[in-house]
Amino acid sequence: MPGKTIGILGGMGPEATADLFLKIIRSTPARTDQEHIRVLIDSNPAIPDRTAAILNGGRSPVPWLTRTAQQLEQWGVDLIVIPCNTAHYYYDQIQASVWVPVLHIMKETALHLRRRYPTLQTVGLLATTGTIRTGLYQRFLGERSLTTLVPGDEDQQEVMDCIYGERGVKAGCTGPEVTARLVKVAQKLIDRGAGAVIAGCTELPIVLHDGDLPVPVIDPTLILAEAAVREALA
Amino acid sequence: MPGKTIGILGGMGPEATADLFLKIIRSTPARTDQEHIRVLIDSNPAIPDRTAAILNGGRSPVPWLTRTAQQLEQWGVDLIVIPCNTAHYYYDQIQASVWVPVLHIMKETALHLRRRYPTLQTVGLLATTGTIRTGLYQRFLGERSLTTLVPGDEDQQEVMDCIYGERGVKAGCTGPEVTARLVKVAQKLIDRGAGAVIAGCTELPIVLHDGDLPVPVIDPTLILAEAAVREALA
Repeated sequence: MPGKTIGILGGMGPEATADLFLKIIRSTPARTDQEHIRVLIDSNPAIPDRTAAILNGGRSPVPWLTRTAQQLEQWGVDLIVIPCNTAHYYYDQIQASVWVPVLHIMKETALHLRRRYPTLQTVGLLATTGTIRTGLYQRFLGERSLTTLVPGDEDQQEVMDCIYGERGVKAGCTGPEVTARLVKVAQKLIDRGAGAVIAGCTELPIVLHDGDLPVPVIDPTLILAEAAVREALA
Repeated sequence: MPGKTIGILGGMGPEATADLFLKIIRSTPARTDQEHIRVLIDSNPAIPDRTAAILNGGRSPVPWLTRTAQQLEQWGVDLIVIPCNTAHYYYDQIQASVWVPVLHIMKETALHLRRRYPTLQTVGLLATTGTIRTGLYQRFLGERSLTTLVPGDEDQQEVMDCIYGERGVKAGCTGPEVTARLVKVAQKLIDRGAGAVIAGCTELPIVLHDGDLPVPVIDPTLILAEAAVREALA
């Protein structure tokens, strides 16, 4: 087995955790089991909802996030990845709680966009209202000279419903109906000038894929997986 | 978060581990993250190949399997599942190394078949040569009055190639070509009288699904996932 052990601080939600795990496996250049990277996962769905904490003063997930990161470190991981965009609001506290590096999903996404699409200027962002309010994508994309477009209020409600609603991803609905609803919102961002659209909640790349839109669909989960594999094999 | 914590002793292979994890998530009656079950996963691909150990006296995976099970137990899991059929050859040693229950994939599959198909008599088995030689499926199915049919030598080579070959699942090939090759082998078992076909290597349900054959395709990974969820919520 090559390289370092990757730790996944997961459960936010569990589907997104499995999605990141699969993307790590598929980004690894391996022909046998033994050439794969060791991955330790704590999929802990008890971690309080990040969006509720940020928007409505709900129970803080910080003690859960830091404790889980510390446990992964004790179990021997060499780096940590967090398959939840919104949880990156607490990134500084999580990183401060452990010695091992914690990769940053927004930072990696901004870096990837700038390298891959050197002339890109404007990016659409589909994400939870929590993630949008934190301004994290806007900040890291801005540092790479990229302008962020977000949906209008009504469309933002629709995105939230696709994630959290009765017929949303967190409720297990991952069929074409959810995809169609997201495509409709994304198209308006494209009409406003977005040259790429970020599926900026880890639940979204499960239902919105590259090819679903006339511009590239950016999958931060895949970008994070590739960064983790690079780091683990370095 | 309800119930107990599930531990997955994984990495054999990593794809199968992700597959079991997803099936646990999707078998859980949950509408929010917080209603899901906590799952701890050690995906440790360094565990020596089970088939090589059984057939050719390769390095024993037992110290890895027992040590990993004990670590999961220390990390607080309440039950353990192993997404590798062949590894169940060492089941007694793994179960003897920990206090918490380790579910048994063959036992659960035989029980499920008997309950779900009360009149079934003969079952086809697609599995690694290692699993077939251990006789474990034959034994547990026999206890439920089910007869096991296995492929002839040449077809068995083909199954092994679909799992381990250059264009096999462990090498990342999970497209329709592998499915077609397996369907061909399975059809001969059906012609010989199999009323159902077990995809009895955790790599196989990734490429062979119910509906691909004129008889039910039995997925032991899904049966194990459902058993784990039942046990965790009990």
